[in-house]
Amino acid sequence: MDLPESPRIAIVGSGAIGLYYGARLARAGARVSFLMRSDLPVVRSRNSIIVREKAEQWQASPVIAEDQPAAIGPVDVVLVALKTTANASLAELLPPLLAPHTMVVTLQNGLGNEEQLAALVGEERTYGALCFIGVNRVGPGELQGFHTPGSMTLGEFRRAAGPKVRQLADWFQRAGVRCIASDDLHAARWRKLVWNVPFNGLCIAAGGVATDVVCSDPALLAEARALMHEVAAAAAALGVSIPEKFIESQIDVTPPMGPYKPSSLIDHLAGREVEVEPIWGEPLRRAVAAGVAMPRVALLYALLQQLTKRGRNER
Amino acid sequence: MDLPESPRIAIVGSGAIGLYYGARLARAGARVSFLMRSDLPVVRSRNSIIVREKAEQWQASPVIAEDQPAAIGPVDVVLVALKTTANASLAELLPPLLAPHTMVVTLQNGLGNEEQLAALVGEERTYGALCFIGVNRVGPGELQGFHTPGSMTLGEFRRAAGPKVRQLADWFQRAGVRCIASDDLHAARWRKLVWNVPFNGLCIAAGGVATDVVCSDPALLAEARALMHEVAAAAAALGVSIPEKFIESQIDVTPPMGPYKPSSLIDHLAGREVEVEPIWGEPLRRAVAAGVAMPRVALLYALLQQLTKRGRNER
Repeated sequence: MDLPESPRIAIVGSGAIGLYYGARLARAGARVSFLMRSDLPVVRSRNSIIVREKAEQWQASPVIAEDQPAAIGPVDVVLVALKTTANASLAELLPPLLAPHTMVVTLQNGLGNEEQLAALVGEERTYGALCFIGVNRVGPGELQGFHTPGSMTLGEFRRAAGPKVRQLADWFQRAGVRCIASDDLHAARWRKLVWNVPFNGLCIAAGGVATDVVCSDPALLAEARALMHEVAAAAAALGVSIPEKFIESQIDVTPPMGPYKPSSLIDHLAGREVEVEPIWGEPLRRAVAAGVAMPRVALLYALLQQLTKRGRNER
Repeated sequence: MDLPESPRIAIVGSGAIGLYYGARLARAGARVSFLMRSDLPVVRSRNSIIVREKAEQWQASPVIAEDQPAAIGPVDVVLVALKTTANASLAELLPPLLAPHTMVVTLQNGLGNEEQLAALVGEERTYGALCFIGVNRVGPGELQGFHTPGSMTLGEFRRAAGPKVRQLADWFQRAGVRCIASDDLHAARWRKLVWNVPFNGLCIAAGGVATDVVCSDPALLAEARALMHEVAAAAAALGVSIPEKFIESQIDVTPPMGPYKPSSLIDHLAGREVEVEPIWGEPLRRAVAAGVAMPRVALLYALLQQLTKRGRNER
């Protein structure tokens, strides 16, 4: 069954990522409903989502926003953009949105999110996306893009890309997002970790510094590279080949980013929960289960758990 | 040549450790001279060092204090109690204090200090001590003990303990400090690192926490144990055997310490320089030179360099 000409899309988790993609898809002609709580009164009365980007400032209007999934009902596509730390709420939020053909796509970071979705909605309805984007929520239903529209890799859970995921990729393309459908979502997730594990982690553990500080400190940069090699070794044991030249490319792309703050660091500095489990905890557990030691990741994971716990306490 | 009945002792570095041992030795009858800069006017005019301990409050008086080593001249024993980060100044401070028979004893932490001394004064005049003590300088020439008089292990550089080091140990005993002469200073230094590497390091890197926080966090405590095993593996490659039961004893002694702040953490929190090289840098370099990887120590060392650099900048 193909996606309909104007698919119904529900956005679960109306933070920056959910609002941004929802607004883009709505403007491109999809029938988008936002599930939101705190922003609901403002967004409803204004009846728009405001987006400021370098190239243009624009609004998505009208906006369909609800605070209960039953008010939205079954849709063709659910985009899950919750913080992973709130995944326990999905058991309650998803069922009213599901039809037998519904695609449930997690836009979340790291490993383990597709598995959690599959347990709730079944493997055959489970999809995932890697989002390469920088966007902040600056007010209720109000966004500031700094690396937008960015790009996206879509894939299916434990399956090669089929026609429907290609059609969804076309929708994102139509909405202005460079989007490709991958035949190997699992491999794509491990490749993204090659950068996220060292840089999201070291930026927090080295005292809340941006990537330029890591890159200009020879000892920290050597540790970033060593962490990347641990990720690659774990991936290899799990059937994902990550060549040396990919690792070097991930080092090379970083200095040009300047004083870039990874999303985990932004969350940490703002006193918000950091997604420690999908980026460090779950990859480490899978590596250990496969008999691969990740000593540096293990130390970093332990430090991050403590450091981000303190962040929450001091909020 | 034996130590004379009342040995002349020069204290180089009049922070808490140097002042404390100097005051103890002076009270026991040694002829002690303190080399000091900032505290000199107050100590000279008061003519005493004030010590507050649980058991008693006492003063060492009179005090011989100078700001130039030439004003002290050659002595029988030099106790080096500078911060290791100031070791470059030893090339200027030591020569006026030396006679052919002078014992030069570093009371400093970690690895590499005896080698630096030996390069300046010769191997045959080089000695070292491990100090197990807790004492703070609370004002000019004024000390507060919280774990005093503590204990000490004295040894010779690359030699078994000879008669003179035993006589010096007797002097510390007479001064109230439990002191033993060891035939293997090198092994004693590595054994002390088994505790210092994990706990001094994790307490800083986990956000400036005391040891009780590390002990009550299962992930951090597992990392402390893993760091201890890295130290033991490096020591083994360098000829020092550290049995498993010693490692477990070092874990076991820590929870009863309560919210203990290791010296490195105290320095860090006060914005003072942290002795990163002797505790993490030098052991790591020796392990790598011996073909032993210390991945966790390497990551911790890189983080500490950055974190303590920031500490100094923000002072």
